[in-house]
Amino acid sequence: MAVTLVNLFCVSDEMESKFIESWHKTAEQMEQQPGFIDSTLHRNLEWDKTYQYINVAHWESSDAFREAQQAVDICEKKVDIEAHPALYTVEAVY
Amino acid sequence: MAVTLVNLFCVSDEMESKFIESWHKTAEQMEQQPGFIDSTLHRNLEWDKTYQYINVAHWESSDAFREAQQAVDICEKKVDIEAHPALYTVEAVY
Repeated sequence: MAVTLVNLFCVSDEMESKFIESWHKTAEQMEQQPGFIDSTLHRNLEWDKTYQYINVAHWESSDAFREAQQAVDICEKKVDIEAHPALYTVEAVY
Repeated sequence: MAVTLVNLFCVSDEMESKFIESWHKTAEQMEQQPGFIDSTLHRNLEWDKTYQYINVAHWESSDAFREAQQAVDICEKKVDIEAHPALYTVEAVY
């Protein structure tokens, strides 16, 4: 069953460029992993909300995502930001 | 410029069926509004995370979304849940 990863990031002004750089490094590795479908990084329009960036990614299964997490060097972890990843299924589409 | 609405919902077990019902009622109105592209409700796989449901919707512009918010009866507001909506732009796609 395909799953959606939603990763919520709290990023300060000072950390933004480092965060973006590290996120791209991670995404370049992630897209090579089995089961990867796509990944879209979103930037908050107002910036004053809790989560300045949100990644919405699709994987063929939760196992595929979890194996990728083990295989890949998650570069954002080395930057001083807060990340809240969680897996979701699609409940309804309009 | 197209925008992405990400709405994070904290939903208790007791409120889940009422929340789903009200979300559908809102979505049925939203999809009739000018500028609506699509809307996907996601349910957390583990349920113990902070946000049990996340809606990811696309609109043709932030103005279109804000006008729709005014025009539509947002039914989730009548249910005892917490909602955190925010607008985003696409920063990067893999």
